[in-house]
Amino acid sequence: MKIMTISSVTLFTICLLISFCDAKVLKDFCVADYTAPQHAGGYSCKSPEKVTVDDFVYSGLATPGNTSNLIKASFPNAFSYQFPGVNGLGVTLSRGDLAPGGIIPVHSHPGVTEIILVVKGSITAGFVSTANNVYIKTLEEGDIFAVPQGLIHFGVNTGPSQALVFASFSDENPGVQVTDLALFGNNFPTDLVSKTTFLDPAVIKKLKAVFGGSG
Amino acid sequence: MKIMTISSVTLFTICLLISFCDAKVLKDFCVADYTAPQHAGGYSCKSPEKVTVDDFVYSGLATPGNTSNLIKASFPNAFSYQFPGVNGLGVTLSRGDLAPGGIIPVHSHPGVTEIILVVKGSITAGFVSTANNVYIKTLEEGDIFAVPQGLIHFGVNTGPSQALVFASFSDENPGVQVTDLALFGNNFPTDLVSKTTFLDPAVIKKLKAVFGGSG
Amino acid sequence: MKIMTISSVTLFTICLLISFCDAKVLKDFCVADYTAPQHAGGYSCKSPEKVTVDDFVYSGLATPGNTSNLIKASFPNAFSYQFPGVNGLGVTLSRGDLAPGGIIPVHSHPGVTEIILVVKGSITAGFVSTANNVYIKTLEEGDIFAVPQGLIHFGVNTGPSQALVFASFSDENPGVQVTDLALFGNNFPTDLVSKTTFLDPAVIKKLKAVFGGSG
Amino acid sequence: MKIMTISSVTLFTICLLISFCDAKVLKDFCVADYTAPQHAGGYSCKSPEKVTVDDFVYSGLATPGNTSNLIKASFPNAFSYQFPGVNGLGVTLSRGDLAPGGIIPVHSHPGVTEIILVVKGSITAGFVSTANNVYIKTLEEGDIFAVPQGLIHFGVNTGPSQALVFASFSDENPGVQVTDLALFGNNFPTDLVSKTTFLDPAVIKKLKAVFGGSG
Amino acid sequence: MKIMTISSVTLFTICLLISFCDAKVLKDFCVADYTAPQHAGGYSCKSPEKVTVDDFVYSGLATPGNTSNLIKASFPNAFSYQFPGVNGLGVTLSRGDLAPGGIIPVHSHPGVTEIILVVKGSITAGFVSTANNVYIKTLEEGDIFAVPQGLIHFGVNTGPSQALVFASFSDENPGVQVTDLALFGNNFPTDLVSKTTFLDPAVIKKLKAVFGGSG
Amino acid sequence: MKIMTISSVTLFTICLLISFCDAKVLKDFCVADYTAPQHAGGYSCKSPEKVTVDDFVYSGLATPGNTSNLIKASFPNAFSYQFPGVNGLGVTLSRGDLAPGGIIPVHSHPGVTEIILVVKGSITAGFVSTANNVYIKTLEEGDIFAVPQGLIHFGVNTGPSQALVFASFSDENPGVQVTDLALFGNNFPTDLVSKTTFLDPAVIKKLKAVFGGSG
Repeated sequence: MKIMTISSVTLFTICLLISFCDAKVLKDFCVADYTAPQHAGGYSCKSPEKVTVDDFVYSGLATPGNTSNLIKASFPNAFSYQFPGVNGLGVTLSRGDLAPGGIIPVHSHPGVTEIILVVKGSITAGFVSTANNVYIKTLEEGDIFAVPQGLIHFGVNTGPSQALVFASFSDENPGVQVTDLALFGNNFPTDLVSKTTFLDPAVIKKLKAVFGGSG
Repeated sequence: MKIMTISSVTLFTICLLISFCDAKVLKDFCVADYTAPQHAGGYSCKSPEKVTVDDFVYSGLATPGNTSNLIKASFPNAFSYQFPGVNGLGVTLSRGDLAPGGIIPVHSHPGVTEIILVVKGSITAGFVSTANNVYIKTLEEGDIFAVPQGLIHFGVNTGPSQALVFASFSDENPGVQVTDLALFGNNFPTDLVSKTTFLDPAVIKKLKAVFGGSG
Repeated sequence: MKIMTISSVTLFTICLLISFCDAKVLKDFCVADYTAPQHAGGYSCKSPEKVTVDDFVYSGLATPGNTSNLIKASFPNAFSYQFPGVNGLGVTLSRGDLAPGGIIPVHSHPGVTEIILVVKGSITAGFVSTANNVYIKTLEEGDIFAVPQGLIHFGVNTGPSQALVFASFSDENPGVQVTDLALFGNNFPTDLVSKTTFLDPAVIKKLKAVFGGSG
Repeated sequence: MKIMTISSVTLFTICLLISFCDAKVLKDFCVADYTAPQHAGGYSCKSPEKVTVDDFVYSGLATPGNTSNLIKASFPNAFSYQFPGVNGLGVTLSRGDLAPGGIIPVHSHPGVTEIILVVKGSITAGFVSTANNVYIKTLEEGDIFAVPQGLIHFGVNTGPSQALVFASFSDENPGVQVTDLALFGNNFPTDLVSKTTFLDPAVIKKLKAVFGGSG
Repeated sequence: MKIMTISSVTLFTICLLISFCDAKVLKDFCVADYTAPQHAGGYSCKSPEKVTVDDFVYSGLATPGNTSNLIKASFPNAFSYQFPGVNGLGVTLSRGDLAPGGIIPVHSHPGVTEIILVVKGSITAGFVSTANNVYIKTLEEGDIFAVPQGLIHFGVNTGPSQALVFASFSDENPGVQVTDLALFGNNFPTDLVSKTTFLDPAVIKKLKAVFGGSG
Repeated sequence: MKIMTISSVTLFTICLLISFCDAKVLKDFCVADYTAPQHAGGYSCKSPEKVTVDDFVYSGLATPGNTSNLIKASFPNAFSYQFPGVNGLGVTLSRGDLAPGGIIPVHSHPGVTEIILVVKGSITAGFVSTANNVYIKTLEEGDIFAVPQGLIHFGVNTGPSQALVFASFSDENPGVQVTDLALFGNNFPTDLVSKTTFLDPAVIKKLKAVFGGSG
């Protein structure tokens, strides 16, 4: 076989002439530097010379979570403060293990879309639109389900066996607002909760006792 | 006074040479055409030849709302389906009239930031972060209050007189998800609400009766 | 009333399992840290542990401005360098007080949309499109008026009484380019102003004297 | 239990007063209408009245693909032209089944980030940065691997058993540019391929024969 | 030379398995369909089957413009309403021919950044920041000059020979607001121009006569 | 000529009342500070007080490149790590000098659109879509050619004389991925290259020798 007659010395020039070969210049990624200032878009970047493949690999979702708790579920995340390589890339994942009857409590991700993938088992999941329609479906193994950005959603393992799901997000740092915790799990004054949710103060106080809230 | 010696005939050329003077070309705005297909970013555009200044003016927030209702409040919007000129512009307003004791029920705007301006009176407003901190403040006349995107927030007219507020949004078409309505004002099955909010089914059924829900 | 039998100890787990409860992790907002490096998108973020509700409240627009000046008007802003909580949130406000005859000089906000709200009085406002159409309207109390991004606009209190307006912007840090100041209020050489505006140098020099320009 | 004394008739008002309850108004999603004009951001939206939960569920990734082919692999997608509910939401998934030795050929997704999740088995995957560094890792079950936007990447099932992977994308409509097909699988003239890749024309012609190209 | 033993029949499968080979699916571009509805982001897309290479080529900037006019300059554009292939791609060009003494009148591009490239000759160009600083430089052949988004800028051929420049824009459809035309070239009432620019009505009327304005 | 009777002392007030005149506040640009932390969106900003017009001018594209190399071409860039003023502005340029027969090797810019402008001579350029169509055209002087984001593209000076081209990019920091270098110019293991490109290992090893790769 004949290869065109160009020497490697010359071709090295391509790097210099066409692209920019200084390994110190950031181009493709911004692996999180957790020690530098943060800004609205995420973390500052680690020097690219210090970046290795391990920055782009995360094994924290590999181990089944412990579901011996009252929600019978566990949800480890691979968000940018845990998985540095995903900073600035606009997508990431969470894992969910749900024992039979396990619960994904009602929550929302402000400004972020989620797609749920059922890897094992079956869950009944749903979301509520701002037009106040409820979209609910029992998802089987291999099904995916899209939850538009910021809407309240939830899930229950309605199947007979352990379920394994993965959620993909349209952001590398989604916030998670669990409705119960937001209303009953902090120092949001009972009087204000009552006025703005129309719940009876006695109900709220009981719920606060359950969810760890005060006030 | 001497003006430089250029004729209007020539200057008309500037329009042709520098800018593009065809009034049929859309450039600066996209006034909503409610009859054409919509897309994820909003409405299709009305032909610019048919656009008048009235497309950019909205008077629907000028009249004080009726607060003789149980929330003692009224909240007319100037969103893109009501105010065609704001389509595609990325900002718009709502008005809030609150009688003494009037309520802004707990709600969120998925993906949209809000700034509340108190024009008259005084309201106590707050939001809950995804780190589950509650930020509450009693706002006086002229105060503004920022609610970061998608977070649960609320307000109460805690003052002695009628309050007037305006909310500015970082989008021309914010959705509004009222937590009570999302949970208790539709056909979200009681069993699923109970499992995913940890509320007792009997409580949910009573709330559904109140908020117009079924199931 | 019976609440489902889950202990607060367990529910605290929800926080750990579903969301991420470390108050040191930035999620929802990026309150400006004025001492750290800035970037194209705004300020770096203050540590979330140091954020309080007061970062999200701004009272600098509460006081009527002094209109005893030649433009008979005053326009305090709540931009991100004044109002730290709005950094990164994509919307903010300005206030305008205009005595009768008060003026909003011709200006533009490069890349930012504005909505003008008339709270008191009446102003005649307008903008010019790049197709060179002029959209002018006399706005009454409660009217709102959209000015598409970056276009030259202006206003005059044409009513008999003091006017109060608020402007909402599609960015938390809008620039303000006052046309007179840009042309006549700096060291832009008279010769170049003349050549590129077709104004007579003598006119420019007089205007420079008025607007504080030199050269 | 006492619930606050508000009637459902009144609360229904909340919907009218706070949110906008017309089911015909698009807010949260833009389910693809494949019959209307497309634009750079995706498909036009189906009328929200016609949207059902099934628009948000996709089962096309549920069935293991046939890997009895020469790449010993199969990669069904859930992109917006297949999965209407994901239109406009900014994230979606693909599935990959790889028999032992199965191949993910060198390819890129212009402008889109990918995260690979290994559900079963083990694959060796990697990408090449524009600084020309190669980041390669053998991923085990449960590992995730981030591929920054638009970079050439690849994978091989280097394990002893069938592998199952899912890819999450930062866009609902990622393009896929397979390098071999781009160079050798179309009518890209051999002479131009040779000049711009420095490959010998004879090599290219043989590759074109393999990859179905002409010219 | 030995090529790996895979048949073209099999490799064709790559297209089906890895990417999506239906030429009717839009992926990479959105060539303008001038007959379909427009939206805020630009034109609807032509069916990809009808797209040819000629959609991506524009020759309208190839011919030197006629500079026998009073500004001694000509500025043809390649914006999306002229060059269909650039729709949705976020960058495009204009050409400028300037005879000695030729003028680029003071103007702005709302929301769009410009980079000026001097191909022949020399021009003195500048912009004014919103902090009211003037940045002016005489550019020689091969120099490039960045004008941040939406700021007033201008240029003069201060060299002895014909100048040729190209402007690159951060948008495929930049608006052009020529300050003189916006103030004096339309029906913007003289009284309002005077009040909001502090120019004498007599001066404005003379300028209106020059720039073709009325009112 | 009479100018309206306002004193410069008063007009100076406009600056204070309408805009914000502190030269220390960043508004319009973010000139790169190469010494501060970088983030996904680019460099941190130099203090605006230290910014001069020279930050916005780049002369590094003014000198014809040396084409006495095997690709008979040279491609200097004006990217943000070379041209500080363009940081954050979303557009920049490269220059290309090509001797007769000079080559623009097959490459892509992940996530960035390019427009090629032929200033002198003639080049044959093209790109390949993800639908695997090849769009090729011989461009003459003054022609422009759009390459949609992230797609493989290439060029050859097929004319009889030296060619000069400029490329405009929809980003100020485009990465450049040269396909040959990505596959054969680094330590990408021959075995993996072979498996994922279907090229014979012997061919790859020869190409690695040419392009400076190892492994």
